[in-house]
Amino acid sequence: MSRSINLAVIPGDGIGQEVVAQGLKVLNAVLPEDVKLETKEYDLGARRWHRTGETLPDAELEALKEHDAILLGAIGDPSVPSGVLERGLLLKLRFAFDHFVNLRPSKLFPNTATPLAGRPEIDFVVVREGTEGPYTGNGGSLRTGTPAEVATEVSVNTAYGVERVVRDAFARAQARPRKKLTLVHKNNVLVFAGHLWKNTFDKVAAEYPDVTTDYLHVDAATIFFVTQPERFDVIVTDNLFGDIITDLAAAVTGGIGLAASGNINPTGAFPSMFEPVHGSAPDIAGQGAADPTATILSVALLLRHLGYEAQAARIEEAVSADLAERDGTARTTDAIGDALAGRVAG
Amino acid sequence: MSRSINLAVIPGDGIGQEVVAQGLKVLNAVLPEDVKLETKEYDLGARRWHRTGETLPDAELEALKEHDAILLGAIGDPSVPSGVLERGLLLKLRFAFDHFVNLRPSKLFPNTATPLAGRPEIDFVVVREGTEGPYTGNGGSLRTGTPAEVATEVSVNTAYGVERVVRDAFARAQARPRKKLTLVHKNNVLVFAGHLWKNTFDKVAAEYPDVTTDYLHVDAATIFFVTQPERFDVIVTDNLFGDIITDLAAAVTGGIGLAASGNINPTGAFPSMFEPVHGSAPDIAGQGAADPTATILSVALLLRHLGYEAQAARIEEAVSADLAERDGTARTTDAIGDALAGRVAG
Ligand SMILES: CC(C)[C@H](C(=O)O)[C@@H](O)C(=O)O
Ligand SMILES: CC(C)[C@H](C(=O)O)[C@@H](O)C(=O)O
Repeated sequence: MSRSINLAVIPGDGIGQEVVAQGLKVLNAVLPEDVKLETKEYDLGARRWHRTGETLPDAELEALKEHDAILLGAIGDPSVPSGVLERGLLLKLRFAFDHFVNLRPSKLFPNTATPLAGRPEIDFVVVREGTEGPYTGNGGSLRTGTPAEVATEVSVNTAYGVERVVRDAFARAQARPRKKLTLVHKNNVLVFAGHLWKNTFDKVAAEYPDVTTDYLHVDAATIFFVTQPERFDVIVTDNLFGDIITDLAAAVTGGIGLAASGNINPTGAFPSMFEPVHGSAPDIAGQGAADPTATILSVALLLRHLGYEAQAARIEEAVSADLAERDGTARTTDAIGDALAGRVAG
Repeated sequence: MSRSINLAVIPGDGIGQEVVAQGLKVLNAVLPEDVKLETKEYDLGARRWHRTGETLPDAELEALKEHDAILLGAIGDPSVPSGVLERGLLLKLRFAFDHFVNLRPSKLFPNTATPLAGRPEIDFVVVREGTEGPYTGNGGSLRTGTPAEVATEVSVNTAYGVERVVRDAFARAQARPRKKLTLVHKNNVLVFAGHLWKNTFDKVAAEYPDVTTDYLHVDAATIFFVTQPERFDVIVTDNLFGDIITDLAAAVTGGIGLAASGNINPTGAFPSMFEPVHGSAPDIAGQGAADPTATILSVALLLRHLGYEAQAARIEEAVSADLAERDGTARTTDAIGDALAGRVAG
């Protein structure tokens, strides 16, 4: 039986181009011969915006819908006003394609630098809600630019949106050996959203008696990320808290150069999108200095999402082995891609 | 000239009682003979709530206004529904007394345990806005408890509120040797509040040409807290981001047992309130196991606020010396208080 993957590629800005090239190299190397990979590149990001003023035209949004998945490099450049590309492109895709599960695994691989003394065992995954919370763009400002300005940001949380991501997180926790799920919120202050999250969590928990549950305020959670990260297995949290704690998680597990993510629509109604957590790093762009590992691990998440579990695992094992054998000499973006492509090749 | 301090004391819950006793011990030891210290204890917190259902009655709020400052231990107990005491007492005081500068210094003292490898130099202070942002209690829920529930939280930011705290932070940065101020926000997503914060920051910066400025998104800031904390001098940020990053800051600088804070109204219109960042820790309450150092350092902030700079510095030097000579044997709450009182005594 022949199979195929119709992949949209958005290299984006800065190091995005370079790391995506390596992601595709490894993807090509790992796929079975009978799987036909078609890729189509979309020119979106800072250059496009400078050229045409567009972030994500409707026609391209429509075209992207036809793909099985999206691989994205990085979006953003200092020459573009803050927020324009983030909201007009990256967040627009997450919202338009209803990527309500923003999946961010954190694992301390062997032989990688962690800023934490004593190298604790770290192997958890954050299920960050991706379509609600303070990311909805609700809010505004009144008397803007005057001494009487009022600016608001509204965090919107729905039972519909919270329950589906909490259910996804419980299912993921149940499938893991430790079967533990921690809800991270701030329900002692954000009582309205907090109650909705906590009540939903407790309700779904009743259906998963074998999953151990825990609750932490987000401030306390950051403490445990550095003092006791081994206590975490699966974490479920809101869009903004998830944004914050996954950067911290990346930092303690060897840095943002290794952190992969998936913006997933588990229903399959729209293509899911996979991207490294890091940004476009314009300061090192074009030098072959970027670590493509986060993108390559994102390709593993992409493959798993599309049902290629064996290939996903092969990439993760290759990364693990590659890091373990690393001797500290700097390698180019290309060299790391080659090494990993070599390891995964049948 | 005889001077006096009329201090309100709210020991609160759990270890609050024990640590506040040591704070008062050191305060008594450090004050010059001619300064008359009057203290009045207020029975507020979980026990009071269980007994009377009250968190902070109007009469007590009025009485508290008459004091020069407030020393608070810790508030909260698992027997009280989450949020009741936090919002009904702690946040109520911060808002009623317009504590718009929530001051949280972070310093890695010699010989203290940090989870960070390599013991970086850490000596920064976070100026957290204390009266706005997502802490205003604005928000609500609709169709509560049904599958159609919508819950909102509104972050309210005013030019008035942002400018006064940003000004305070610039003044603090200018008074420090490194003269560096970092704004932490998330202005690529929270664009309305983000623009207000960034524009205000840039406007005030023009009046402080000798202060170096920097901007970081809150997610990136957490990375630098663990990989490069020495880059920070003074940080100014919103109420919720400040809550999150100061717990992380405490964790990397030897733990929450050392983190002091001041809820300051710099105008003097209302008494300022000083409290350790840690909570009531009911699991170790009553055992003499709590470290009172954070409370004692909060007393130093209190003294500085009231103009007793020499005495504040004396406490901070005593803590530094005490920690440097610590040999790892566990000391009781009382023993640490005695040691520090001994060191600061004229
Ligand atoms: C670029 C930005 C909009 C984005 C976010 O806040 O979600 C990024 O920080 C991330 O975590 O993917
Ligand atoms: C107890 C809670 C309301 C409080 C806060 O969120 O401000 C605490 O975490 C703090 O940092 O003082």
